Amino acid sequence: MNHILVLGAGRSATSLISYLLEAASEKGWTVSVADYALQLAEEKVNNHPNGKAIAFNINKDDEKEALIAKNDVVISMLPAKFHPTVAETCLKFGKHLITASYVSEDMKAMDQQAKEKGILFLNECGLDPGIDHMSAKKVIDFIRNEKGQQLRAFESFTGGLLAPDPKDDNPWQYGFTWNPRNVVLAGQGTVKFIQEGRYKYIPYPKLFRRIEMIHIPGHGYFEGYANRDSLKYLEVYELEGIQTLYRGTLRRPGFCKAWDIFVQLGATDDSYEMESVTQMTHRQFINSFLSFNPDDSVELKLAHYLGLDKDGAEMHKLNWLGLFDEEPVGLMKGTPAQILEHILKKKWTISPDQKDQIVMWHLFDYEEQGKTKRIRSAMVANGENAMDTAMSKTVGLPLGIATKLLMEGKIEARGVQIPITPEFYNPILAELETLGFDFVEEEVVLD
Amino acid sequence: MNHILVLGAGRSATSLISYLLEAASEKGWTVSVADYALQLAEEKVNNHPNGKAIAFNINKDDEKEALIAKNDVVISMLPAKFHPTVAETCLKFGKHLITASYVSEDMKAMDQQAKEKGILFLNECGLDPGIDHMSAKKVIDFIRNEKGQQLRAFESFTGGLLAPDPKDDNPWQYGFTWNPRNVVLAGQGTVKFIQEGRYKYIPYPKLFRRIEMIHIPGHGYFEGYANRDSLKYLEVYELEGIQTLYRGTLRRPGFCKAWDIFVQLGATDDSYEMESVTQMTHRQFINSFLSFNPDDSVELKLAHYLGLDKDGAEMHKLNWLGLFDEEPVGLMKGTPAQILEHILKKKWTISPDQKDQIVMWHLFDYEEQGKTKRIRSAMVANGENAMDTAMSKTVGLPLGIATKLLMEGKIEARGVQIPITPEFYNPILAELETLGFDFVEEEVVLD
Repeated sequence: MNHILVLGAGRSATSLISYLLEAASEKGWTVSVADYALQLAEEKVNNHPNGKAIAFNINKDDEKEALIAKNDVVISMLPAKFHPTVAETCLKFGKHLITASYVSEDMKAMDQQAKEKGILFLNECGLDPGIDHMSAKKVIDFIRNEKGQQLRAFESFTGGLLAPDPKDDNPWQYGFTWNPRNVVLAGQGTVKFIQEGRYKYIPYPKLFRRIEMIHIPGHGYFEGYANRDSLKYLEVYELEGIQTLYRGTLRRPGFCKAWDIFVQLGATDDSYEMESVTQMTHRQFINSFLSFNPDDSVELKLAHYLGLDKDGAEMHKLNWLGLFDEEPVGLMKGTPAQILEHILKKKWTISPDQKDQIVMWHLFDYEEQGKTKRIRSAMVANGENAMDTAMSKTVGLPLGIATKLLMEGKIEARGVQIPITPEFYNPILAELETLGFDFVEEEVVLD
Repeated sequence: MNHILVLGAGRSATSLISYLLEAASEKGWTVSVADYALQLAEEKVNNHPNGKAIAFNINKDDEKEALIAKNDVVISMLPAKFHPTVAETCLKFGKHLITASYVSEDMKAMDQQAKEKGILFLNECGLDPGIDHMSAKKVIDFIRNEKGQQLRAFESFTGGLLAPDPKDDNPWQYGFTWNPRNVVLAGQGTVKFIQEGRYKYIPYPKLFRRIEMIHIPGHGYFEGYANRDSLKYLEVYELEGIQTLYRGTLRRPGFCKAWDIFVQLGATDDSYEMESVTQMTHRQFINSFLSFNPDDSVELKLAHYLGLDKDGAEMHKLNWLGLFDEEPVGLMKGTPAQILEHILKKKWTISPDQKDQIVMWHLFDYEEQGKTKRIRSAMVANGENAMDTAMSKTVGLPLGIATKLLMEGKIEARGVQIPITPEFYNPILAELETLGFDFVEEEVVLD
């Protein structure tokens, strides 16, 4: 195996491509980078002797087949909806496939065929899903196999944040370091988890009020709100019988209560188009969710409606975003969520010198000798700037390392897989640690 | 025209069938009542000399065609999903069709064909939609045509309630007088209306807190919460340029704040199945939406979570429903909404001697000689018992009267119609008044 193909050369592929080119130099491999925009692929390859930039249209079957047929391992950084067609072509030509996306039903259905062809379809091998699986499953397996104990509780939180910057006066301490639309829609639907043996449910309008405070030594406090469905990890990690199972998202303290204002107003609703958007200002956007009352300001109506302190921290955050300004939204049409996203982008788009930060935190409780022991495990990684982000590295490097291991013949698993077994998590986590992405673990005995 | 066909003989068809049989006696018509359950049709026809009970399966094309071909006017009381197939058969044989359901896209598409065949497809001719259209449009046309003025504001509320009964200790003053599932799901989605020239939006989690108090002389106070989409009435009633347009639902005072508890908990969510329903008690159902805390009662956790007085009116309403009891739910599976409906039915199913009450209220503002004038119009109708309900009468009688008028050749409109023109609303409202369903109007000058 000598030929690697990367499909998609967007921002999230930067670190992956750099890593693969470096490995290729050493091993004499080739790395083909294919994108609809040739220039993007060329920028990423940057005339590297082992690299090749290719213009490519996923919708053209002949291009897709010719390209995949020529390579040994395909890494798809395309939007997840394209993975099934890429996977089908990989099946046809007997090529390995690696992605950072969740295993879809279509993907799952190809497991048997992939096994028969002797190829690996490795998915969920980025950050979240990816590093979360590996770092959690490693500890779970340690408790289970080394200690011989059963896991009593498992909590896991990840956040894509801004690195702390004392010069930055953004009171949210937050910016768009990944897909803004997903940030605006985050948490919609019902949250399900297990707490002390009981199934628990949180509806969206309460989600940002039922937060957990998490402390990471050396990095301070974070707020965690629950992710949509923690229950699916029961099966994936084989945790049946666990008493507490909770997955969530991290934000800086104070974020959730302020974000909840948008939720309560209905400003994150993506189900209908608003009227008269062309003439709408930020202030009118907010006002459209409040009662009519010509004698009160929008600020006072909002504070009263949601029980906020008119001069408090949440109102300050909204003020800083310019939400009370008579500034035109600048869209012709849109749902509340689309309009909110557009307004937020004016302030939350990160500048070239801003650094992002990835924070991942796990908690594991187990019983040993009649005592409850708790392991906490945390990784905090900062980006270098708005291009070389921690997000890009933590998504791309696990993919790159997995590809290298596979090329080197060090992975035996075949079929549709996610990286939850030692042959994946041990070498990938070990190499990530040498690259500066390490988990700090501590164990305490609970009384 | 001599032959009338009623499809569906359920509870809501009782008054309709009685009315038609009486008219048929007088005019020498026949009334065929067709239902999947022959016994139900026989009960409703009750051996009336002009009536005929027929067993009928809507899914059998030959039965459907034979039956419709033999009659002149078809009234469909079937679930709304069956109306398109009934309408197509009516088109085929050139028969008139009357329903109490909203005009669907499928129905709308048949307008031209129905006109060409010279037949009437009259829809939305029950209570709501139906009497609301007629009673509102009559006043709107009066202001527009008689007064020559423009409507400034239009509000309209309807409620299906229980008639006041001092012997009843139900603190909700509410019971299921129509489809319980629709009551549980009421208001989901986003509400849109116009207030003082501004488009306004209320998300579901705020809906039951943004209520309006409405006074109807002789009947006391009611709470109104907004219906989903008031904006569609802009076009239907030709109200473009109106400053306030608001439609809603009426409940007894105190209902909405207590119902909001279910909304806030997520207990009306119909999007997912709960776990372990077989073993669930009422108390556990409520607890599954609350945080784990072994030291606090479910009651205290709930009161604290939602900022309620632990001994207040809302908690009393929940207590009365038995929601804190360790009584098994009694279902094998279900969504939160299905489980809530099942629990509510234990207390909210009306007993044979209970009387329902229909309340409809409109407000119209217009300018005249530099002054704003306001017309209020209200109808309150009580049922006789759990069979002869006000709901059945107010849905069935407009359908019956419209049928009679059509049979007598007094309706000229053809194609897909709703009863918003004088040839419908004048004679139907006039006859409803003789039957005891009258609107009391009052006009005031606002300062």
